[in-house]
Amino acid sequence: MRNPGEAQAGGTVLVAGGAGFIGSHLCAALLDAGAHVTCLDNMQTALPSNLQRLLQRERFSFVEADITQPLPAALTDGRTRFTHIYNLACAASPPLYQADPEHTMLTNVVGTNHLLRLAEQTGARFLLTSTSEVYGDPEVHPQPEDYRGNVNCTGPRACYDEGKRAAEALVFDYARMGRADVRVARIFNTYGPQMRMDDGRVVSNLICQSLEGQKLTIYGSGNQTRSFCYVADTVDALIRLMDSDMAQPVPVNIGTQAEITVLELVAAMEAVMGRPLDITYHDLPQDDPQRRRPDISRARALLGWEPTTQLAAGLARTCEWFAEEIAASRPPAQRVA
Amino acid sequence: MRNPGEAQAGGTVLVAGGAGFIGSHLCAALLDAGAHVTCLDNMQTALPSNLQRLLQRERFSFVEADITQPLPAALTDGRTRFTHIYNLACAASPPLYQADPEHTMLTNVVGTNHLLRLAEQTGARFLLTSTSEVYGDPEVHPQPEDYRGNVNCTGPRACYDEGKRAAEALVFDYARMGRADVRVARIFNTYGPQMRMDDGRVVSNLICQSLEGQKLTIYGSGNQTRSFCYVADTVDALIRLMDSDMAQPVPVNIGTQAEITVLELVAAMEAVMGRPLDITYHDLPQDDPQRRRPDISRARALLGWEPTTQLAAGLARTCEWFAEEIAASRPPAQRVA
Repeated sequence: MRNPGEAQAGGTVLVAGGAGFIGSHLCAALLDAGAHVTCLDNMQTALPSNLQRLLQRERFSFVEADITQPLPAALTDGRTRFTHIYNLACAASPPLYQADPEHTMLTNVVGTNHLLRLAEQTGARFLLTSTSEVYGDPEVHPQPEDYRGNVNCTGPRACYDEGKRAAEALVFDYARMGRADVRVARIFNTYGPQMRMDDGRVVSNLICQSLEGQKLTIYGSGNQTRSFCYVADTVDALIRLMDSDMAQPVPVNIGTQAEITVLELVAAMEAVMGRPLDITYHDLPQDDPQRRRPDISRARALLGWEPTTQLAAGLARTCEWFAEEIAASRPPAQRVA
Repeated sequence: MRNPGEAQAGGTVLVAGGAGFIGSHLCAALLDAGAHVTCLDNMQTALPSNLQRLLQRERFSFVEADITQPLPAALTDGRTRFTHIYNLACAASPPLYQADPEHTMLTNVVGTNHLLRLAEQTGARFLLTSTSEVYGDPEVHPQPEDYRGNVNCTGPRACYDEGKRAAEALVFDYARMGRADVRVARIFNTYGPQMRMDDGRVVSNLICQSLEGQKLTIYGSGNQTRSFCYVADTVDALIRLMDSDMAQPVPVNIGTQAEITVLELVAAMEAVMGRPLDITYHDLPQDDPQRRRPDISRARALLGWEPTTQLAAGLARTCEWFAEEIAASRPPAQRVA
């Protein structure tokens, strides 16, 4: 097999949402592989520091725009022939995507449609990052790609879950109509450096609370499960998926099969921190899924991929990054020299 | 209980998709109830004859526009304060909505969003006609409104099914954010006069083939079931739903619980036609649902409604209308004086 990203090395790649958590790692990996990368982001939930790091690199450019609006002429005037378009643009944690549910829906549907039209126009291969949320609160474990899901289309998570399902529908219709060559990744829980501290997801919540010496907030019993994939593994899978040959495009689950409870995650955090951590329990939010674990047989078979980063190692690197961010955000007088 | 439509009698009502099959019956019923009615339609699948009949009535006006585009100033300039907005705009039969799946998705998501914004702006109550298709190929029978469905979000029906699910998500988010007072109907199979002859749905297909002396096309074994509601009953339910009081909006199934197989429908057609009908069998299209039957407990409880038209009577009236349409479409020389 070729090296991942080799096919994109000489290419001109657009990464929508490229300043976000996974997006900024993807941009860096594509630059490492030799690609020219244009990052498109509205900076709604992206960390400015992610973008600042990327702006120091060669072959990187940035366009600030919101994909719910017509794309800027800089992208559509035909002067840049994109070879690959990744769509990672959308707030992905419930408090952030529920703050403006209409915008979340339009980002997924109208935004994806704008990028698909650009792919059609430039002949670029298009990759949508969909989500494990298309399975809702699943009644089948682990979830294979042909499981049709259990989403409440009238609930407060629907703007994201149904938005992504609608985006998938659009993408596969573009493929069926011969309008674009497409790939769809369904990303499960991912963690790592460059996450927002305040994004409200369990890993960032627990790490920040640990580092700040606060009690850890657990929603529900803590026996709900998640499968946490380290971001470098996720990005490797996305690049392989973009490279992959597929006669008929199919969605591909990207995540780890190592399913743990939230309480087990706390125990892993205690091991990283080297001390016991106190817990406070809160009610479970509406429609919060009880279990989530991907069946990654398809990714193994089609991409020759599986995650390789152990939770302990990934958590340690993530904690280290968060500790630096917290230190950097304090006034200089409070910093330890 | 008040008479259905009484609350809308003095109102100014916008009906998007008002020249379509159900929409044209709804416009007529609202005019009968005393409302001022503005019909908005792009004439994509509407029969011009439906519109011609309505244009002869008082208190009726027509705006030709496509709701995927920004709404015309005639609707948004504030000179007309709509009290009620019904959204029935979307091609609803698979051959028609699959012809341009991107437009189908955008009609449901962008179009619904444009109309929701108009509802917010004018303070109108908003009613979305959603569909039994949100249940996909259901594994629960009959389908209650809290059943989350079994939709293939990557398949050829997804542009419609996921489009409607996404539209519901938007509508309930508008309600949660306090931006609009909303109602959602999930309409099951409906039949009656003013359907397109070529819309590809089973009732219109079988009636036209019977009247033209052709063999009846049955997809699959003919043992798949449907529940056929007569359009006058459906329209009565929509008007009652728009009138209804709801502290928290919930979707309401509109349809009949009289579930019959396609072969039983053929037998009912034979009774109407007074002669045996020949059948030819074809393969079932992809993702065609095997069973479909609403649980209408909620409509009974909230709206005091259930269908009252028997299939034999409804089919007879529909056949009569189709026979007139076919006769009218022939050159005069071929018509029997």
